[in-house]
Amino acid sequence: MSTETTETTENTGPVDTAAAITRIAVAAKEASRRLARLTRAEKDDALEALAAALVAATARIIEANDRDVERERAAGMSESMLDRLALTPARIETIAGALRELAALPDPVGEVVSGQRLPNGLRIRQVRVPLGVVGMIYEARPNVTVDAAGLALKSGNAVILRGGSAAQQSNVAIVDVLGDALTELGLPRTAVQSIDAYGRAGASELMRARGLVDVLIPRGGAGLIQTVITDSLVPVIETGTGNCHVYVDASADLDQAVAIAMNSKTHRPSVCNAAETLLVHADVAAEFLPRVLTDLSRAGVGIHADARAAEYASSHGPVDVATEADWAGEYLSLDLAVKVVGGIDEALEHIRTYSSGHTEAICATDVRAIGRFTTELDSAAIMVNASTRFTDGGELGLGAEIGISTQKLHARGPMGLEALTTSTWIVEGEGHIRA
Amino acid sequence: MSTETTETTENTGPVDTAAAITRIAVAAKEASRRLARLTRAEKDDALEALAAALVAATARIIEANDRDVERERAAGMSESMLDRLALTPARIETIAGALRELAALPDPVGEVVSGQRLPNGLRIRQVRVPLGVVGMIYEARPNVTVDAAGLALKSGNAVILRGGSAAQQSNVAIVDVLGDALTELGLPRTAVQSIDAYGRAGASELMRARGLVDVLIPRGGAGLIQTVITDSLVPVIETGTGNCHVYVDASADLDQAVAIAMNSKTHRPSVCNAAETLLVHADVAAEFLPRVLTDLSRAGVGIHADARAAEYASSHGPVDVATEADWAGEYLSLDLAVKVVGGIDEALEHIRTYSSGHTEAICATDVRAIGRFTTELDSAAIMVNASTRFTDGGELGLGAEIGISTQKLHARGPMGLEALTTSTWIVEGEGHIRA
Repeated sequence: MSTETTETTENTGPVDTAAAITRIAVAAKEASRRLARLTRAEKDDALEALAAALVAATARIIEANDRDVERERAAGMSESMLDRLALTPARIETIAGALRELAALPDPVGEVVSGQRLPNGLRIRQVRVPLGVVGMIYEARPNVTVDAAGLALKSGNAVILRGGSAAQQSNVAIVDVLGDALTELGLPRTAVQSIDAYGRAGASELMRARGLVDVLIPRGGAGLIQTVITDSLVPVIETGTGNCHVYVDASADLDQAVAIAMNSKTHRPSVCNAAETLLVHADVAAEFLPRVLTDLSRAGVGIHADARAAEYASSHGPVDVATEADWAGEYLSLDLAVKVVGGIDEALEHIRTYSSGHTEAICATDVRAIGRFTTELDSAAIMVNASTRFTDGGELGLGAEIGISTQKLHARGPMGLEALTTSTWIVEGEGHIRA
Repeated sequence: MSTETTETTENTGPVDTAAAITRIAVAAKEASRRLARLTRAEKDDALEALAAALVAATARIIEANDRDVERERAAGMSESMLDRLALTPARIETIAGALRELAALPDPVGEVVSGQRLPNGLRIRQVRVPLGVVGMIYEARPNVTVDAAGLALKSGNAVILRGGSAAQQSNVAIVDVLGDALTELGLPRTAVQSIDAYGRAGASELMRARGLVDVLIPRGGAGLIQTVITDSLVPVIETGTGNCHVYVDASADLDQAVAIAMNSKTHRPSVCNAAETLLVHADVAAEFLPRVLTDLSRAGVGIHADARAAEYASSHGPVDVATEADWAGEYLSLDLAVKVVGGIDEALEHIRTYSSGHTEAICATDVRAIGRFTTELDSAAIMVNASTRFTDGGELGLGAEIGISTQKLHARGPMGLEALTTSTWIVEGEGHIRA
C-alpha cells in the first residue's frame, strides 16, 4: 500500500481521470443490475458476511487507520477531528453492528407502492426499485464508508465512494476488505468502489457522470455540501445544515420549556438537529429566561442575546450581544442565540428569515399558537413540546438513516432506505391500444 | 402593450435583471404562504373563477395571440408550430375546461402520508404540503401558461412562468387576465407571475434563485430541457425525452403485436410516449415483419431498418438503412427504426444502450420473457401487451398531468399534482426530551 498522503491529482491528467471515473461508473451500473435482483435473504446474508469480514480484518484496518491518524496528527489536525478519524477494535465492532442492524430491516425493494385495475382492464402497479448507482462524497469519517456500502447494498444499489483524503488509508483497507467479502459471496466487487485515488479531479468527474450515477449524497460540512450542489450535474440530495429554533410561547409549560431548551442545545451540540436559537415570548421572558439561562450557563453554554434578553442574563455572567451572524449561523457548539419576541408573529418571521429549513420546536399549550407554528413554517420537521433532537431516523422509527434532507424534492427530513429507491410503472394489458 | 418581438435582454442590464427576478421570486414566496393555507373549496372556487375569466376575455386574448401568430408567420415559423401557437375561441374554452377539471380533483395538500405513536409516546405524522414556488420554463404553447397556473394553484404553490418568446403577447394577456381574476377573489396577484419581459437573462436568473424557487420544471424540446439541467442551481424535474421501444418476442400474439406497434408509432407520433424503435425476435421476423411493415407503410411511416429487417421490407418500397443516429434519436415523426434481434438478451441490451428511460413495451405470452423485461430494464414505465401511448397521467388515472418524469428522484413517469408537493414531519410530545 502506498504511503503517499496527498491527493493524486498531479499524477493523473484530466483525460485519464475522466476515463477512469467513467470506467468505474460503468462497472457500478453493471453491478447495480445484479444487485437490483438480489432477494432480501441474499442481501441480508451478504450484510452479515461483510460485518464478519470487517471484524476479522480489525488488525489490518487499524494498521491503515493508524497511518492516517499519525499523518494527520503531524499535520496539525485537531483532537476532536482526530477522534472522529480514529478506529479502535470496539469502534470496528460498532460499525459492523450497524451492518447487522441493516440486515434486520425490511427490504424496500419490490414494495408495490400503488396499484389498480383501470376501467379499460389495464392492470397497473408502481413497484419500488433501487435507484441504481449512488455516489457518496464525505469527509474524514471511516464509519461512513461502511455505512454507505451497507445502505446501498440493502437497497439494491451499487455505490461509488469519495471519502476525505485524511482517511484515505483507512478507506482503502475497508473497501478492500468489503470487496474480498463480496467476491467470496459471488457478488460483484464493483458493487462498492472507491475513487479516493483520483483526488479532487475524481470527485469533479463523479459530479459530471449524469446518466451513469443516479444520485449524489454529500455528507459533511456546509462547504462540502454547497460545492456539490453548485457543481454537480448528477441529481443531489442535500443534507444536514440545521439552524434550528426553539420558540417558547406565552402559553408554554415553563418546566417543559426549560427541559426542551436544555436538551435541544446541550444533548449533542455538534449535530444538525441541535438548537441554535431560543426565541422567548415577552410575556414569559421575566419568569422563563432567568431559569433557563442559569441552567444553560451551568452546562457551559455561551449566550448571545439581543438587548431585551440580555436584561435577564446580566446576573448569569457576561453575555455576548447577538449580531446578524448569530441569527444566521449554525454554531454546532455550546453556544446559543437568545431573543425576546413580541409574540408568535415575530417568532414566525424570525424563523422564516433565518431557518435552514431543518427543525423548529414550539413549547406551548395554546392550540392556536401550535396550529400556526405547524402550518406557517417551511421546515422539514416541527416539534410540538418536544426536543429538536428527535429529528433523527432512528428516533422516528425509520431504522437506518442515510442523512437528514433539508431539501424538498424526493425526500424531506430523516431519510431511510426508501430514499435510495425510485419506482417503475408496470402496466399489463391484453393487446390494449389507445383509441 | 408593446409590440416589440425580441427578447428584452438588451434593455435590462444583468444587475437590473437579477434584482427584478429576486423581487419577483420573493413576492412569489410570500404569496405561496397564503396559497399553502387555502382550503380545497377556496382553491376550487378560484379555479372556476379563473376559467370563467379566461372565457370572458376571449376577444382580448385572441387579439394578443393574433399579433404573435402574424409576427411569427412573417418570421417563417412552420405551419405545425403556428398551429400550436394559435388560439381560437374553441381552444380557449378547452383551456378553461382544463381548469374546471382540476377543480374536480382531490386536494393533495393536507394528506397524512404516514403516522404513528412511538413507544415513548411521541405522536408523529408526515403531512403533505406544497413545494412553495414552482418555476416553469416552456416553449411557444399558450395553453401551458394556463395549465401551469392551474396546477400550481390546486397544489397550493405560487408559480413563475417563463414562456417562449413567440407567445409573448398571448402570455402577457393571459397572465393579466388571471391576475385580475385572482385580485377580484382577494388572492395575491403574485401567485401567478411571468418573467417573459426579462428574456433569456431572466430565465438564467430564475435558474439561480435557489432558496426562493423550490423546483424548476422545463417543458419542451430536448435542447431546452438539457439547458435547464445543466445551468440550474434550483432543483429540476426532468421531463419528456422518449426514445421508446416495442419488443416483439417469439412468444407474442402477433395480431396484438401488429396493433400495438401500429398504435405506439402512429397514434400521435409527435409526443414523447410514441415508439421510435421496433425490435423483433428473429424466430417470428419472417411472419411478423411483412405484416407490420405493410401496415406501417400504408400509414405513411418511414422505415429505417437494420440489414436483417430490411430483407423483409424490400417488397414494401424503399427502406433506409438504420445508422447509430436512428437507434439513439427520437424521431417525433412518422419514422420508425426496426431491428431483428437474436432473442430477449439482445433486445434488453439494445434498450439499455439506447433508451431514454421513458417507456418500453413487450409483446409476449411467455411469462419468463415478461418477467425479465419488467425487472431488468431501467425505464419509468414498462408496458406488457399494451401500447407505449398509455404512459400518460390521464390514461393511468392521475387526473391532471404536469409532465412525464424521466428522472428517478422525486417523481418517475407520469406526474400528477402530488409531484408539486413535499411533506413536513410533525412531532407532538408532552415535554419529551432525548435521554
